Amino acid sequence: MSKLLDNVVGELSRLPGIGNRTALRLAMHILQSPKYEADALAESISRFRNDVKYCSRCNNISDSDLCPICCDERRDRSVVCVVEQVKDVISIENTGQYNGVYHVLGGVISPMQGIAPSDLKINLLIENVRQGGIEEIILALDTTIEGETTAYFIKKKLEEFPQVKISVIARGIGFGDQLDYADQMTITHALQNRRPMK
Amino acid sequence: MSKLLDNVVGELSRLPGIGNRTALRLAMHILQSPKYEADALAESISRFRNDVKYCSRCNNISDSDLCPICCDERRDRSVVCVVEQVKDVISIENTGQYNGVYHVLGGVISPMQGIAPSDLKINLLIENVRQGGIEEIILALDTTIEGETTAYFIKKKLEEFPQVKISVIARGIGFGDQLDYADQMTITHALQNRRPMK
Repeated sequence: MSKLLDNVVGELSRLPGIGNRTALRLAMHILQSPKYEADALAESISRFRNDVKYCSRCNNISDSDLCPICCDERRDRSVVCVVEQVKDVISIENTGQYNGVYHVLGGVISPMQGIAPSDLKINLLIENVRQGGIEEIILALDTTIEGETTAYFIKKKLEEFPQVKISVIARGIGFGDQLDYADQMTITHALQNRRPMK
Repeated sequence: MSKLLDNVVGELSRLPGIGNRTALRLAMHILQSPKYEADALAESISRFRNDVKYCSRCNNISDSDLCPICCDERRDRSVVCVVEQVKDVISIENTGQYNGVYHVLGGVISPMQGIAPSDLKINLLIENVRQGGIEEIILALDTTIEGETTAYFIKKKLEEFPQVKISVIARGIGFGDQLDYADQMTITHALQNRRPMK
């Protein structure tokens, strides 16, 4: 009907969770909204992808050389939470319960996908530890084979710093989850890591 | 964390059906996809909104003066289906069952939203009818008060062309819908418009 419409529907439907129907609905919304709104949307996408920087210390996204979390004097820089992606930082920040800093690996080791340790920001982490001041590394990676492999690799690399404590976030039954829906590995972990009440 | 991220999440979450969480997920996808993909998405949005044209005959979106449907020699130009929005054209086209042409009003009469008949392409429709060649007008507007009002207004306007047949798409129980979930108006219409079997 219109190549411009086909084009925008095609591009929008490449986004995750957006099928052809939703893409068309979004395109119709864009058509009916003021031009400046469509331009603001387009510009925000393009600028985000092209202009975003990565923190030189923790690899989190940032508008400048150091990210706001690394710059924040109130954060405890002796505790570093190692995560896979920027979105994990956002998830943990949203809890409001963590006051340390982060280290974003940018992925996990995956021979299947051709991701080697050198493709991740592991050396930057080791370098930061070497510079001193870090007392604890919390590994908060996904509970996938790749996540576990990466955690093990980092643990090995950190063996040259015996003074640094390494911990892993607790595995267990999620809040609101039902026991009979949990898989065996999760139940096993939950049992092994049981805590005394009171 | 990053103003660029906040910005893109803010803009994306203005789209219908996209909340903050989904917007963040989309932003993370954009971050991980190649720059040319993000640029293609941004450009497709901006170009669609700024460069799209409207067919001078039927007001459908188009890349040129006349839309592909109005240009198509195989379409029956004696039958015009009047719809509210471009998306309605797409819905009807997707059935593959309609061979006439369309007329897109661009909305419905709505005193509440300050939309008067003059804000819609009703005069263009009357003008097209006046030029001759149109034998039937099918009104395919929404079954809202505004839709019914608009249908009535157009019917009145077309009274000066008694040779033109005016019809309304059938109202009834949708395919796959359950009778006990249908509202009274729908059931009343469905009963009144019952057809003999065979």
